[in-house]
Amino acid sequence: MNQIRRERERARTDRPDLDAVLDAAAVGTLATVLDGQPWVVPMLYARDGDRIILHGSTGAGALRHVATGAPAAFCVTLLDGIVVADTLFDSSANYRSAVVRGHLTVIDPSEAAYALDLMSDALIPGRSAEVRSNNKKELSATLAIALPIEPERWTVKVRDAPPSPPDDVADSGGWAGVVPLRTMAGDPIPAPWVSADVQAPESVHRLVRRT
Amino acid sequence: MNQIRRERERARTDRPDLDAVLDAAAVGTLATVLDGQPWVVPMLYARDGDRIILHGSTGAGALRHVATGAPAAFCVTLLDGIVVADTLFDSSANYRSAVVRGHLTVIDPSEAAYALDLMSDALIPGRSAEVRSNNKKELSATLAIALPIEPERWTVKVRDAPPSPPDDVADSGGWAGVVPLRTMAGDPIPAPWVSADVQAPESVHRLVRRT
Repeated sequence: MNQIRRERERARTDRPDLDAVLDAAAVGTLATVLDGQPWVVPMLYARDGDRIILHGSTGAGALRHVATGAPAAFCVTLLDGIVVADTLFDSSANYRSAVVRGHLTVIDPSEAAYALDLMSDALIPGRSAEVRSNNKKELSATLAIALPIEPERWTVKVRDAPPSPPDDVADSGGWAGVVPLRTMAGDPIPAPWVSADVQAPESVHRLVRRT
Repeated sequence: MNQIRRERERARTDRPDLDAVLDAAAVGTLATVLDGQPWVVPMLYARDGDRIILHGSTGAGALRHVATGAPAAFCVTLLDGIVVADTLFDSSANYRSAVVRGHLTVIDPSEAAYALDLMSDALIPGRSAEVRSNNKKELSATLAIALPIEPERWTVKVRDAPPSPPDDVADSGGWAGVVPLRTMAGDPIPAPWVSADVQAPESVHRLVRRT
């Protein structure tokens, strides 16, 4: 990404490295091929062991098409910092990214309720214990999809380093460094119909503390 | 994204809506088709009027391949909040996303220096005025690529709303709302070789204030 010096951009090859990136983000980009053209859509997701769970409306035609065996690539990126180098050439970003390749499959209806609870808990940890699970009508409106995580079908890249020092001493002497970035949660905003005396649940407090 | 109620997920069709999404993010996901398979990579980018500028190393084989006319889709997503609804089904996210489709072209070497300065300023506003521009060696190591923004070849979707009220009154009564998310910059971290008496430049202060 950007003109990153190769020695500072690291491919990570251990499976826990992949899980760490996937578990740190909530949104990824799903790509597939439709009529020979690239097709992409941002999607919320959850990792469930050796698979990534995605979901959408059963009414979404393109999604249903790709869910029935089309080759897919799912990309997750976290931007961790802006790398301010002595030169524009060496300016860059610190980041974590993962790409998982494979074929999507539709999750069996008998498993869909579990998968969708897990999706909700990935987004709002603990929420599935606070409210009822999806009912039949909701389940039938939802397409739960899995992308398997298979050996040799994924890549992880991480840059987590100061700028590269300049090649030419004439470029040095100024300030160089990293501006770290992080995602922060603001104060929860109640929906318009929620009375002021209704307290936010533990899952919401946890969400705010976590970020 | 997620099981978003259709009425709250809005397609935006005015060109300024696209520019607003593209100008708010720094990283996107570039997708293309290689040997019939989806190929994706996260990339820093800048918008330059009616085109998106990308860049990479001239040594990156796959990137050079796609830069020579392959069909591409570039996806940008900003996660703005977690939508905590009365049901798991209605839980969702507030977000802004854009997809731009087209064919990549390699930027002419005569224009590359300008394009790369603009890339740097998209990442670190004002930085190109503080340090020298890319030199010949750096320019020859860099592939500057453009994706044109053409009418009817892009889509923007935005969800910026409270949760959907529950269909069933039995599900209501609890807290529901939005946990807003934003990206914050932390204190700049000087590179190990930078003396404590060297002040961070204005571009870095601007970066910290902006986020």
